[in-house]
This record gives sequence, C-alpha cells and structure tokens, in this order.
Amino acid sequence: MPPAHVLLIDCPDQTGLIHRITGVLSRHALNILKNDEFVDAETRYFFMRTEFEGDIDAAALRTELLAELPKSVNLHLNPRKRKDIVVLATKEHHCLGDLLLRYAYDELDATILAVVSNHNTLQPLVAKFGIPFHYVSHEHRDRPEHEAAIHKALAIYNPEYLVLAKYMRILTPDFIRQYPDRIINIHHSFLPAFIGANPYKQAFERGVKIIGATAHFVNADLDEGPIIDQNVIAVNHRYTAEDMAKAGKDVEKIVLAKALKTVFQDRVFIHGNKTVIF
Amino acid sequence: MPPAHVLLIDCPDQTGLIHRITGVLSRHALNILKNDEFVDAETRYFFMRTEFEGDIDAAALRTELLAELPKSVNLHLNPRKRKDIVVLATKEHHCLGDLLLRYAYDELDATILAVVSNHNTLQPLVAKFGIPFHYVSHEHRDRPEHEAAIHKALAIYNPEYLVLAKYMRILTPDFIRQYPDRIINIHHSFLPAFIGANPYKQAFERGVKIIGATAHFVNADLDEGPIIDQNVIAVNHRYTAEDMAKAGKDVEKIVLAKALKTVFQDRVFIHGNKTVIF
Amino acid sequence: MPPAHVLLIDCPDQTGLIHRITGVLSRHALNILKNDEFVDAETRYFFMRTEFEGDIDAAALRTELLAELPKSVNLHLNPRKRKDIVVLATKEHHCLGDLLLRYAYDELDATILAVVSNHNTLQPLVAKFGIPFHYVSHEHRDRPEHEAAIHKALAIYNPEYLVLAKYMRILTPDFIRQYPDRIINIHHSFLPAFIGANPYKQAFERGVKIIGATAHFVNADLDEGPIIDQNVIAVNHRYTAEDMAKAGKDVEKIVLAKALKTVFQDRVFIHGNKTVIF
Amino acid sequence: MPPAHVLLIDCPDQTGLIHRITGVLSRHALNILKNDEFVDAETRYFFMRTEFEGDIDAAALRTELLAELPKSVNLHLNPRKRKDIVVLATKEHHCLGDLLLRYAYDELDATILAVVSNHNTLQPLVAKFGIPFHYVSHEHRDRPEHEAAIHKALAIYNPEYLVLAKYMRILTPDFIRQYPDRIINIHHSFLPAFIGANPYKQAFERGVKIIGATAHFVNADLDEGPIIDQNVIAVNHRYTAEDMAKAGKDVEKIVLAKALKTVFQDRVFIHGNKTVIF
Repeated sequence: MPPAHVLLIDCPDQTGLIHRITGVLSRHALNILKNDEFVDAETRYFFMRTEFEGDIDAAALRTELLAELPKSVNLHLNPRKRKDIVVLATKEHHCLGDLLLRYAYDELDATILAVVSNHNTLQPLVAKFGIPFHYVSHEHRDRPEHEAAIHKALAIYNPEYLVLAKYMRILTPDFIRQYPDRIINIHHSFLPAFIGANPYKQAFERGVKIIGATAHFVNADLDEGPIIDQNVIAVNHRYTAEDMAKAGKDVEKIVLAKALKTVFQDRVFIHGNKTVIF
Repeated sequence: MPPAHVLLIDCPDQTGLIHRITGVLSRHALNILKNDEFVDAETRYFFMRTEFEGDIDAAALRTELLAELPKSVNLHLNPRKRKDIVVLATKEHHCLGDLLLRYAYDELDATILAVVSNHNTLQPLVAKFGIPFHYVSHEHRDRPEHEAAIHKALAIYNPEYLVLAKYMRILTPDFIRQYPDRIINIHHSFLPAFIGANPYKQAFERGVKIIGATAHFVNADLDEGPIIDQNVIAVNHRYTAEDMAKAGKDVEKIVLAKALKTVFQDRVFIHGNKTVIF
Repeated sequence: MPPAHVLLIDCPDQTGLIHRITGVLSRHALNILKNDEFVDAETRYFFMRTEFEGDIDAAALRTELLAELPKSVNLHLNPRKRKDIVVLATKEHHCLGDLLLRYAYDELDATILAVVSNHNTLQPLVAKFGIPFHYVSHEHRDRPEHEAAIHKALAIYNPEYLVLAKYMRILTPDFIRQYPDRIINIHHSFLPAFIGANPYKQAFERGVKIIGATAHFVNADLDEGPIIDQNVIAVNHRYTAEDMAKAGKDVEKIVLAKALKTVFQDRVFIHGNKTVIF
Repeated sequence: MPPAHVLLIDCPDQTGLIHRITGVLSRHALNILKNDEFVDAETRYFFMRTEFEGDIDAAALRTELLAELPKSVNLHLNPRKRKDIVVLATKEHHCLGDLLLRYAYDELDATILAVVSNHNTLQPLVAKFGIPFHYVSHEHRDRPEHEAAIHKALAIYNPEYLVLAKYMRILTPDFIRQYPDRIINIHHSFLPAFIGANPYKQAFERGVKIIGATAHFVNADLDEGPIIDQNVIAVNHRYTAEDMAKAGKDVEKIVLAKALKTVFQDRVFIHGNKTVIF
C-alpha cells in the first residue's frame, strides 16, 4: 500500500518550520506516517519530506502551507506517483533488460513509454515486452541532427524522466538543458574515478582492487551531475579489463534500479551538485 | 561542536505529536538542527530525536513537553553527553585495545572508569592507558560468587553502561537484570547465525562464504538481545577456523566501536527486542 | 574466448602431485594458462584445476594422468562447457527473469532447456523467451505424486543441473538423491541464519541490521547443503518484513547468477558439506 | 604455525615452468602446502608463490631452481619472515595506534623499530609502547633538509619498509628512490578518486555516496603507485566533510593493516604499476 500522501518542501531554513508545516497538517486532521527533515549546514537550506494519511483538500492545504513558508520555497504535494519515462540505450542489454523486467512486474514505480536507441541491437529485447522501440541512428548525422531526431522521438511521449541505461553517446548541453534534473545516467565507474570513456580499461590499467558504478543526474558537465547512488565490488589481479566490465554489469544494473526507485518514489532532492535522499 | 541540546521521546503514536513537540520548542524560540521520527507500523509506537540550539529552561521545557504527550511517554532531555562505562574483557585484546585508543584521544563519547577481567592477561595493556584494572578471577568461585565479586568491583564506579569487549563468560539473568538495557556485547558472529560458543568454528564447519560480528544489548536470553550493529567480511575455503577468527577481529572491533558511538550519542532507542537508531 | 582445456582433479594429497600432473601436461607440450590448487588441512584432500592450451589426445592424456594419481581420484578433462539445465520456479519472477535475460544473451554458460513450475504464474514470462514451460501443479497430489510428475517433465530434458530459482516447495530426500550434487538453490537468507520458511519475517522479528541470500547445493537436509556464494545488504528499523523481502530480491538474483557462473565454468568442487571454488 | 618455507618466483612465462619448479622441490622430497601461480595475459609474465615443508639445503635448492628458470628471474627463498619497519606519522593517531597495538600483541608480522614524525603530537602514544620516537620537525628546513634529517633518523634502523601511517608530507622522488618498492602509504580516498590533499573535503563537495581508503606502494608520482588494498563505506547527505573524515579513519586503519599483512607475509608481487597478491 503506497503512502496516502507525500509532501516535499525545500526552502531556506527558518526557526519553527517543522512546527508550522506540521501545524497545517494537524489543522487538517492529517496523520503523519513518516517525516524526514535535513538542514544543509553550509547553505542553511531546509529539506522536508512527509508521508501522511487522511482526506485532503489539496488546494486549501497547498495555500495554507505556502502562507507559512518562505517565498522561495519548492513545494510538491502528491507528485504523480507513477512517472512516465523513456529509456535511452545503445547495445548493452543488462540495464535495459533489468528495467524491462521490473516494469513488466510493476516494480519500477514508472511507466516505460518507449525505448530509444542509436542502434537496433536491442529491438528484439524491447519487443518481447511490447514497448515501442525507436531506432535513431547517429550515422550520417552530426550531433545536433542526431539529437534533434531523438527529440522528435521523445516528443511523442512527453516523458518526465529520461533514463540513460548505458546510452553510450555524449549528450550536448543544449539537449540536457531541455530536461533539467530529469535525465538519470548510470556511469560504469565509481565516480569521480575514471570519468569519461572506457572506465573499466582505466580501472584495469590503474590496478584498482575495487570497481563500481554510479547513478547520477546529468547536467552539462560530463559525469559531474548530482550522484544518487553508488556501489562497488572487489576485483583482483586476475581480472582483465573485460572481466571487470562483465563483473561490473551486475553492479550497474542494481545501482541504476535502486537510484530510479528513490527518484520515482519522490525521495530525492537535488541541491546544487548534490542529492538529499530520504 | 556537539549539538547544544538533545531531546528523546518515545510513546504510543497520536496524531499531531510532532506538531505539539515542535510547538513547545518553538515557543521557547529554540532552533531545530536535526529531527528524526519513526512510527513502528506494528506497535504504533512513536520515536523522536531532536537536536536543537538556544538557551533553555530545562525544567519548564520538560513540564511543557510532558503536558503535550501521552502519560506513558519516555522523555529524555539532554542525557549526560559523556557516558561513564566499565569494560569487561577476558584475554583478547583487540576490542579493548581499540576502545582504549579511542578513549585516549577522546573519540569514545564516554569515560572508561575501569576494566574488569576474569584473567589478568590484559592488565599490562590497560596500565599503559592509566585506567584501573580489576582482576576478578572466576577460579574457585561458583557463578553467583564470581558475579558478586564483579558487582563489588563495579559498585565503586557506578557505570551507566557495561561494555562486554570479548568477555567470554556467560552472565546470569540475575546479573543482567541489574543493568537493564545497559549492557552491550560484541558477539563474534552474524547473529542469529552461530549463537553460543565458538562461532568461527561453527562457521568453518558450515562452510560459509561470509562471516560477521554483531553488537547487541544483552538481555536474559543468550545472544538474543536487541541488535545495534552488524557487519561482515568475505571468507573462502582457504580460511581455517583460526584464520576466520583472526580476520573477524577487525570486524568485531569496528562493529563494537560503531555501536557504542550510536548508543553514547543517544541515537538508539530500544523497542522490545529491536533497536530504532537515528 | 573460453579456455582451450580444463582439467579438474581431486584426490587424497600426496607429495609431488602437482609435479606429476604438470609433467604429463608438459610431455604433451601443453601450456598452462591458469592453475589452482588447494589442500584441505583437515582432510588432507588435494584439489586442482588447470586451464591449458594446445592440441590434445584426450584419451592418452587421461590415461597418463590416471597412472600418476591415487586410485580414488576424481578426474574431469574438459567437462562439457555448456551445461544443460532446467529451472524450477514458483511465482516469483526476479531470479527466473534474470536467468532468462542472461541466457538470451548467452551469458549463462548454460542452456535453459525448460522451466518447470508448480504454478502457471510465470508462464507468460518464460514464453517471451521461447522456452518450454511445464506447469506441474501440486494441487490434488501428495508429495510423491507431485515429484513423480516433475520427474516425468524433467525426463524429457535430461538436465545436468536443476536450478531452484525461488522454487518454494520442499523436495524430498528421494527426489534429491536422483540429482546428487546437481541441484542448486537460492535461499533468501544468510544461511545458517533463518533456515526454513519466511526468512525475511524471521529477520524482521529478530531486528537484524543486515539481510542476505545464499546459493547452495541441495542435499537431503533442508538448507544444509554446501554453500556456493552468499551476499548481504544493510537494512534498518524502517524496513518492514515486506521491505526486506523486496530489497532482498536483488541480492538473491545476483548471488544465484554468480553461483551458477562458478559452477557452470567448472570452478567448484564439492568436498563434504563445503565447496572449494577457484 | 607459519609455513616452513616460502618460495617466490617471477619471470617471463615459459611452457613447463610449474613442472620444472615443482620438480626441483620434488627431488628434494619437499611437500607443497600451498601453491599459487598467475600469468599476466598482457605482459606474459609468470608469478608463483609456494609454501612447502621439509628439510632444505637452501643453497642447493636455489642453484637448482635457477638452473630451471629464465635468466631474468626474481627468486626469493624464505624472505625474512619478520620485517623491520619504521613508521612515519604526523598528528593523526588512528593508523599508528592500531599498528602499535598489533605489534604489541605480535600480530603485525613485523618489528616496529621506530616512529618518525614531523610533529611531536604522537610521542606520548608511542612512548606507551616503548618504541623510539624521532621528532624531525619540518619547520625552518626546506624539503631536502627535512628529508635529509629523516634519512639520518632512519639510517640508525636500516628498515626494510617505511610505513606512512597518515604521514602528511609529500616525499620527493629523490627520497622515494632510496626505498624502491619499500614505502607503503595509506591514502584517505578511494584512489584514483580524490588524488592529493583533502580528499574528504573533495568527496564532500562532489556529493559522493561512498568513501574509501587505499593502501599502495609509493613511487615518484603522487598517489600513483601500485595499489595493495582498498575498501569503502557508505555515506550520505548528512555527513559533513568532517564526519566523512571521522568515519573514514576506521577504513584507513583496517585497509592499511590488511595491506601490510599481505606484504609482510610475502604474498605481494609488484608488477609495473600493479600488484599481484596471493
């Protein structure tokens, strides 16, 4: 059973915020089930996420809450529970396949509207799950043309989030700007180690004893966006770069799925280049 | 810089508790720095821990808070920050040594008043740190006599917590009852696997691929008290039972230290046979 | 590129075994790529796994090797690389789905000949991958009858291994005896903690801070067979038993897949109730 | 009981190496207890570590082995089991304290001959363990002068290894060159992430969800030497840079101790910028 209602608030900190916010909920006779707050000690920014139950007059609640809060607040009452997403992929199947399976069994908290790829390799996999597949080749197109073609494919679906499930093309700042805080990528390294191409090869050459994966929001700087989740596994001298890549796939798919879950359950705030996750 | 004030509350859940509690703090013009709440879905019990800053009239604050809360509440305002503890050990040095080092550099959030042991093996180690050492042998004493002798040694110090840092004697329910929720043990297995004696030997014989350690409060049932923290490490067929015991020592000492830190920082509630940790 | 040849030997230890074995390979001008040995200190049993390259006369090689080894040796030269398996499942899709995806992309080192289930829930999933699905209901059948029906379904395929991918029925010793060392199960706990039914509920009630999964060979004693792999994740007081079960699914599927990989790559020896894994 | 004998060999790979090496051992009627080999697929370099028991004529054994091996071999027969080390530290006590405790209980496989520091902060700690402490201040000295003074302090002891236990001064290539492959450092990050100063501050600012520590040999390039061991812990938005530094201390000390153990037990080969660890 999902929480009856979710309230997300972030704003500059003030004395008495929790009391004022919970006061509004209390006046509406709403019962708080879970409450998380955090104040960033550096920026003095306040974050709060509340799950509560009861019958609500959403408009009134929102108005009363805003009256108690600073003007520069971000307030989200009951963001749409089921997100609409489009997945971008290239040739590797492990992250996409994992998401398709979760979606097929309603464990993704999201609807995969379509899959877009610059190769047609994964078309048969996507077809098994009855989801539209758009093959948008990058061949014979320069980057702006290719991204324009992707945009066109995406425009049909109007997704809330783009999920880059091992999409191996670099997106331009222009493209990214059109999906602010709405693109989530899985990077196949423990960022900020091994930024850029071929992280497993880099890891192999550096002789590391642990490799990892990082799910993050995408912003204009490559691999520099707010990190949502990371995990690692141990490797040793017996691993070739290829062995590392193989072993890393399971970490990638689990980290991506876990990150998506927290985002889609409205448990993630973006704060500058960081995330606050409840 | 430690938090100015800490407030701990647990009671049966009611609608509006957070609002009422934060209202009292608000009326006193106190600024909340951190706030954690949890409601146990099964028992409908409410737990809250608040760190706040500002000048307080503790008596008034307490009175006003109690007026807003159910009668059966547990309320702790500013529990003593620095706990007084006595450590019980036997022959193994790794947990005790680690605690002594942390204490020597003021990283324990506690004062080690004394060490009590049923062997004198560790006396030289304790002496290095200038802490009283009580050798209370169990030889030629039955269990009640031995425990009476320990009690006598402890009575000098009146410790808030007893820390069993690889104390290898089983304590009787009678003894435990005198320190309710105040005895913390490190068990050298991933409980509830391998309860009782020789867990590494049990782990070796079972052929497990992971071993662990568990820090828990001690209650009358052996190894059954509320778990505070656990951690694990990978092992393989090359490990003898002795190798596992050696490798496990580092896990034991880190898990114990981490558990003590959360308890001594007043971040742990005991709820039946479980802990709620903020 | 898979190793050209694999040699597996286990026998009572003797002085000079490695020299004698590698001598045979040397006389055949074969080049060793990887070599692992282990001698169990308790049982004085010797295990060796060698990957080597070169043209072989398998019959001659085998004869010459046996001439150098104790009579009670187990020797496997080039076990069939691609195993034939049948997967047994019940209603949960996560382990089965993960295996089907890996199989579809040839990452399983095995051929899934069929899926057998006591429910028809997973039939549509299996159908997506074009694999035979046998619905063998346990209703209106006693256990021997049900197992006889499963046997009949399996007989068509003659699988080397049965993989219990969350198959929630207990198999009888009679059934197990027919697949000695050939049934692999994923148990949804960190064995030997929480043997038997409902381990997540048991874990929740015990208030553990870590949960796990265990892949093991199945023998006549429930959940007591040789462990192949285990892994864990952290949980806390916020997790209900249901949350633990959900979070545990990812551990289960990864542990099972990793265990199968080591078995199917002929890297696992069974030694009594333990495994030796190279 | 330590292994009776240890043999370490690395050389360019050839067909039949294991057979020839074990042949020599066999002719001497020596019984192999453990054997590890690895061939680097890129460099075609062969590494072998053997533990064996029996009475040996070391000179004869060495001569016969060398006769079977390529000229460019490195062969070590029974390296001195107990290493002589000097620890360099600055102000932080956690790694040094941990090493002193292990040394006091003979769990370090090494003798700490002395501690050298550029501050006198840790003198009282070292005094507790009765080990010489050399305070070699860097004040009023340029780097070459300071390193010359350290050299002078070290010269008394002629250590096999220098252990940098949170020594916070950068060593010059000239200094490092005098201890080739003999300086081991603990870096307080998951290298190669956060090379250089203040890694926890860097980690905090990047908003990572995992932090780590890396033990490595020191070569002329800062933080670029062969990695011996790494480990990580999870962090979240609640951690300040200072919290990360505190939490990281336990990882640092355990990773350093574990790395030293493998090196001091002669289980580590250095191969270019990587390690091969058996």
